[in-house]
Amino acid sequence: MTFTATILTLYPEMFPGPIGHSLAGRALAEGRWHCDPVQIRDHAADRHRSVDDTPAGGGAGMVMRADILALAVDAAMARRPDVPVLAMSPRGRPLTQACVRDLAAGPGPIILCGRFEGIDERLFEARPIEPVSIGDYILSGGEMAALTLLDACIRLLPGVMGAAHSGDDESFETGLLEYPHYTRPREWEGRTIPEVLRSGDHAAIAAWRKSRSEDDTRLRRPDLWERHEGARVQSPSGARREKER
Amino acid sequence: MTFTATILTLYPEMFPGPIGHSLAGRALAEGRWHCDPVQIRDHAADRHRSVDDTPAGGGAGMVMRADILALAVDAAMARRPDVPVLAMSPRGRPLTQACVRDLAAGPGPIILCGRFEGIDERLFEARPIEPVSIGDYILSGGEMAALTLLDACIRLLPGVMGAAHSGDDESFETGLLEYPHYTRPREWEGRTIPEVLRSGDHAAIAAWRKSRSEDDTRLRRPDLWERHEGARVQSPSGARREKER
Repeated sequence: MTFTATILTLYPEMFPGPIGHSLAGRALAEGRWHCDPVQIRDHAADRHRSVDDTPAGGGAGMVMRADILALAVDAAMARRPDVPVLAMSPRGRPLTQACVRDLAAGPGPIILCGRFEGIDERLFEARPIEPVSIGDYILSGGEMAALTLLDACIRLLPGVMGAAHSGDDESFETGLLEYPHYTRPREWEGRTIPEVLRSGDHAAIAAWRKSRSEDDTRLRRPDLWERHEGARVQSPSGARREKER
Repeated sequence: MTFTATILTLYPEMFPGPIGHSLAGRALAEGRWHCDPVQIRDHAADRHRSVDDTPAGGGAGMVMRADILALAVDAAMARRPDVPVLAMSPRGRPLTQACVRDLAAGPGPIILCGRFEGIDERLFEARPIEPVSIGDYILSGGEMAALTLLDACIRLLPGVMGAAHSGDDESFETGLLEYPHYTRPREWEGRTIPEVLRSGDHAAIAAWRKSRSEDDTRLRRPDLWERHEGARVQSPSGARREKER
């Protein structure tokens, strides 16, 4: 079963867009994933193909109608039963690397992209759609958020990154920021690569990287650090895993 | 002065990509912003135009060289002095709507897009580059993150969203999630629009929206709620503004 992204959108021409290039684009050409954008307007009932209306209670902008979106969602779910259904929304659950891993291990989601002021809330009460947010900022629509989520998933699909690279060391995989990287030239503008990285002592290098990863997380992301320390205290198996590394 | 995005990337063909469509695309065509992608390889010195090398200390993948990137950054900064220089990186400062507003009010950033395992850390010591992260997940490169950041900025540029819409009510602008939206039909699958939104009582509608915004934030994003409450206690002017709303 090949990972498939079904995207319900008013702008199908945005897909695959940037994920049609580079790593994800090569994987698409190789058939390692499928991109299946669906025009929501194809489910509209009137000749203007309208999908939105003015907000109940007043206010600027337009709101996407629950009835039209439900037709689009129902059709996609009928074609692809038992796959996760997401809606990109700033009101949603924040996307994490753990969530990306789960999605990448599955059949690929149906993703509803909101536009305008948002989506009639009744849709989320009536259908099993999980709202997901890629961050605490506002985009012009859900399309860019969907592309971001898909880019994160696709690089984890089998064969996409290559066997050499498991991604296990990266930022967030350990609950911490990744350690800093260095490469040639050995000296540049009077700055040298840290001595330990040139020592060939693998244990010392691993210890240095772990310590830099911890220090940088503590300094730059106290929120992540607190969560990481909290998880270690609360979960004995997590603490054990930590020791075994 | 028109908002300009200078993007240093190995994939200039990814730009404007999705922000060449819809709202941002129309604004681009109208000259409300400029998209200026730069191929980093044009600054490479060898005939293979290489920009990366193996990580010091070992490990999978490749690291982008500080010396080549510095040439690209220096050239862009010489062309556009006094503009913010960012690098999209999961080790960076988390992007917020306040940061988006600041960027949108300025001349537009130079954005360095990392690829592979990351960028030689010495670049960040030697140049005034701020690493920025769009979220706690890993992408195939900085390009998607740059597109996301730019999409968030461009919708705030003068004339892009239209005068009717200031965006002040949206998620994160008040430090809270936005209230839920409803539109016609009044009844759908037995679910009705909340009574108060059909009352025409503007004060009652505003109170309902504020209360839903607070409830949803408390329930869905305790992290945001704590920060919001903390800011109100610590900042008398913030608390005053809250009361005046």
